[in-house]
Amino acid sequence: MGTTTASTRARSWWGWGYEDQAVPRDEVLATAGRLAERFDRAVETIDPPDIADLDLRAPRVAVPAALAEWCSTTPADRAAHTYGKSYRDIVRAVHGELPEPPDVVAFPATEADVVAVLDWCSSAGVAAIPYGGGSSVVGGVECAVGDRFVGVVSIDLGRLDRVLEVDPVSRAARIQAGALGPVLEEQLRPHGYTLRHFPQSFELSTLGGWLATRSGGHYASVYTHIDDFVESLRVVTPTGISESRRLPGSGAGPSPDRLFLGSEGSLGIITEAWMRVQDRPRWRASAGVVFGGYEEGVAATRAVAQSGLFPTNCRLLDGLEAATAAGTSGVAALLVLGFESADHPVDTWMARAVELCRDHGGDVPAGVQASDGTARARDDAVGSWRSSFLRAPYLRNGLVCCGMLLETFETACTWDAFDELHATVTESVNDALQRICGGGWVTCRFTHVYPDGPAPYFSITAPARIGSELPMWDEVKAAASEVLLAAGGTITHHHAVGRDHDPWYRRQRPAAFGRALTAVKAELDPAGILNPGVIV
Amino acid sequence: MGTTTASTRARSWWGWGYEDQAVPRDEVLATAGRLAERFDRAVETIDPPDIADLDLRAPRVAVPAALAEWCSTTPADRAAHTYGKSYRDIVRAVHGELPEPPDVVAFPATEADVVAVLDWCSSAGVAAIPYGGGSSVVGGVECAVGDRFVGVVSIDLGRLDRVLEVDPVSRAARIQAGALGPVLEEQLRPHGYTLRHFPQSFELSTLGGWLATRSGGHYASVYTHIDDFVESLRVVTPTGISESRRLPGSGAGPSPDRLFLGSEGSLGIITEAWMRVQDRPRWRASAGVVFGGYEEGVAATRAVAQSGLFPTNCRLLDGLEAATAAGTSGVAALLVLGFESADHPVDTWMARAVELCRDHGGDVPAGVQASDGTARARDDAVGSWRSSFLRAPYLRNGLVCCGMLLETFETACTWDAFDELHATVTESVNDALQRICGGGWVTCRFTHVYPDGPAPYFSITAPARIGSELPMWDEVKAAASEVLLAAGGTITHHHAVGRDHDPWYRRQRPAAFGRALTAVKAELDPAGILNPGVIV
Repeated sequence: MGTTTASTRARSWWGWGYEDQAVPRDEVLATAGRLAERFDRAVETIDPPDIADLDLRAPRVAVPAALAEWCSTTPADRAAHTYGKSYRDIVRAVHGELPEPPDVVAFPATEADVVAVLDWCSSAGVAAIPYGGGSSVVGGVECAVGDRFVGVVSIDLGRLDRVLEVDPVSRAARIQAGALGPVLEEQLRPHGYTLRHFPQSFELSTLGGWLATRSGGHYASVYTHIDDFVESLRVVTPTGISESRRLPGSGAGPSPDRLFLGSEGSLGIITEAWMRVQDRPRWRASAGVVFGGYEEGVAATRAVAQSGLFPTNCRLLDGLEAATAAGTSGVAALLVLGFESADHPVDTWMARAVELCRDHGGDVPAGVQASDGTARARDDAVGSWRSSFLRAPYLRNGLVCCGMLLETFETACTWDAFDELHATVTESVNDALQRICGGGWVTCRFTHVYPDGPAPYFSITAPARIGSELPMWDEVKAAASEVLLAAGGTITHHHAVGRDHDPWYRRQRPAAFGRALTAVKAELDPAGILNPGVIV
Repeated sequence: MGTTTASTRARSWWGWGYEDQAVPRDEVLATAGRLAERFDRAVETIDPPDIADLDLRAPRVAVPAALAEWCSTTPADRAAHTYGKSYRDIVRAVHGELPEPPDVVAFPATEADVVAVLDWCSSAGVAAIPYGGGSSVVGGVECAVGDRFVGVVSIDLGRLDRVLEVDPVSRAARIQAGALGPVLEEQLRPHGYTLRHFPQSFELSTLGGWLATRSGGHYASVYTHIDDFVESLRVVTPTGISESRRLPGSGAGPSPDRLFLGSEGSLGIITEAWMRVQDRPRWRASAGVVFGGYEEGVAATRAVAQSGLFPTNCRLLDGLEAATAAGTSGVAALLVLGFESADHPVDTWMARAVELCRDHGGDVPAGVQASDGTARARDDAVGSWRSSFLRAPYLRNGLVCCGMLLETFETACTWDAFDELHATVTESVNDALQRICGGGWVTCRFTHVYPDGPAPYFSITAPARIGSELPMWDEVKAAASEVLLAAGGTITHHHAVGRDHDPWYRRQRPAAFGRALTAVKAELDPAGILNPGVIV
């Protein structure tokens, strides 16, 4: 078998990102030291093993000769495709715990290759785990599927990464599912377009992954979930290819696309999609609004979300989050507001949003920053996203190796439920952190807002004991998930379900709908090979 | 059995609407005369039969005693629930052709009643046809289900018409599915809210019908399809009740609601929903933009649709439609633009939209009309809707009885496909009208616009021969449907599939998705009693 991989730039096999972007060790140690001091303990460290030292289970199956050219059984490929990139995943990899790696990693270069590998899996009883950028933080690409299968193949779509067609009249593009965020944006840029979908995982997540998990974009309101940008999907199921018609809207029966959106690879593998793209923005305005009370910040954010102004950014950070992420100290809440347009100046929009915030006790100490539209398409959004977000997961790689527990979880709820959800989540998680980790804190920001509710995103920082990370985290996570569900939230707004959220997802999902999905799975994937244990 | 009905105000059993709103006969005859003159023929007339003269098939089944109190077998109820309100339906009723009326009409007053009637249908092999307002124009509520069942019951949800709960923080309301448009708006008004969903059928269509058919609202852009207003659904299936969680957004698996939205009663009966409601608008602006060329009008509309301004009204009428519907003569296209807000003046939005139109050759002869926001919630939108739309279907009742063929069909397509779709539909339908009817015309307007395409809506006016209406219309309809599909459109953007669109829907739908729906149907409705022949 060959060793074809999707990219030549080396990625970390055990943690987030590209190896050449790793944060220097002394910087990691300095940060870990500051954290450890706050937790009143010493820094422990552990080094991830070399791939050569991993004692991976020998491959249990051999792929047919026709597939061999684009399949790999190298330890590097198998180790890198064993897990996603959650805290659990990184911890297990760092400890060299990879008891269930894929037997084979397939790198299909064409849709026919995808069909061929699924045909083989169905006939041979091999589990098939679709793999986009591998950025899952919920166990969505994990290869632990138990003994029901003779083997497991991880199907890496990374070579299907082309923008195949651009329709400048309808502003849409046909894009292969394996394209990473930067790869597809680079191909859209010469046409003046952007998909304008910037999840934090942008650098190493793919269009197909976004679609399969109902990804939430970087932008805050109106068209933000990837669902809303889909014109049509092409999906390889084990029993045939499903392709929907390119349509701006339709009322012809239940939406075919919405069945596959969120199916997380359990019903088929998305190979390409016609996506709605957008002109690159020319006008932008941003403002930071500070509040003396958190409740005032929430009320102001709700007013903006219900105003019909549709801000592109509307993130409410709590005081601790504002201090750590934005360096704003001494405030109870910071609302980061932004508007942008490719068509018109956005001053009027921003002025009204700021007015609403002031009506709710907000203050705008630094005023509004605006671009005047004369400079064409200066990419502030991507630029500021890069600087604020890109480095965080790289730093986490190092901090996890210093015994720090760093993880996030997220939800969405209606506005009427938020106060109690926020209070009970914060209390429950802080209690759990004290009890289990002996310290730590949880912060909250809104990643998205809707007229009827926010999507709160919680970040945990705590000390763990190296060697005991998993049971510690699992207990914190269970406490958080229980209280999210009890308070009326969803188990996930945009991180997806995967294997990690399965117990809570099954409780949240209407039972009749669960039976419907099981029936669909039996029809489309009768051998049950696709991502076993996920969704269905 | 009793004769309980949902409303005491008498509705026409054979045509659209309330009997007290019928257009006077002399006015109908005058209009028919003008049309007949244009078609160079004499006015033929036919009178709908009295219910007492209908020779309805005797009921073939008797409902269990426990259901009898709220079930009816009167000829009036059975005749009124035999068809929807399409041209085909009215023609058949006017000719007294009702070979397959429902054996029973059920009027459940509670969800438990709905469960009871479905239980009876499943166990006795009786087909169950969910009936909201009966406004279907696609054969969606028709009781012709063949010989596979021992009987047919039409289930009229009209008594389930209450707004049960209002959440003013999240701006949402829990509403029973059988509430007609005016009935639910009347209950929301004291709270200051509106659902802001005004299809042309508003007066006699229900929330449940809108949800089951993915209704398109009166408004033109962004949140308009009823799908986008749903927080959660409660659905009675023959094998259990499905209730989704109230959420502003979620990424937890495929959307449960999106499976039932558009299922047209084939998978379950929606009994209630939490819906996103809105503050009643205070600021409004409207303008009529005229164009010397139709292509310029299309280009301007596309620019507005892609601008991110999100107009509430953005209807492009072709020249003939502008002349007949708006009295604007001598223009190639008229764009009716509107903006509204409960939060802020909309001048800036309108000014930019008008500027875009002028850039594309548009002229605004009457300028912009704006309300200043000082008068609270003057209901212009509903008001103007009433005057322009409400009377049309009443007049149609009469004109159909004078041998006029009046019908509409609609679609959506991407902008790149529109020019050819418009040209081929117009040519094909005009050819068919000449060939089959010896005259007539088709006009086009956009009912909704999306960044990637419009929803064109076509209206046909032609002479028919009384007694031959059905084969004439069926041939025109088939010609139109074929060319819609060939040109890349959907068989329906918001009229739904029903029985009439089934052949084209099956060709449009991905085959794998069709198999998935069949599997879901077998799971949720194993006896196959729900709306047989529709969707699945």
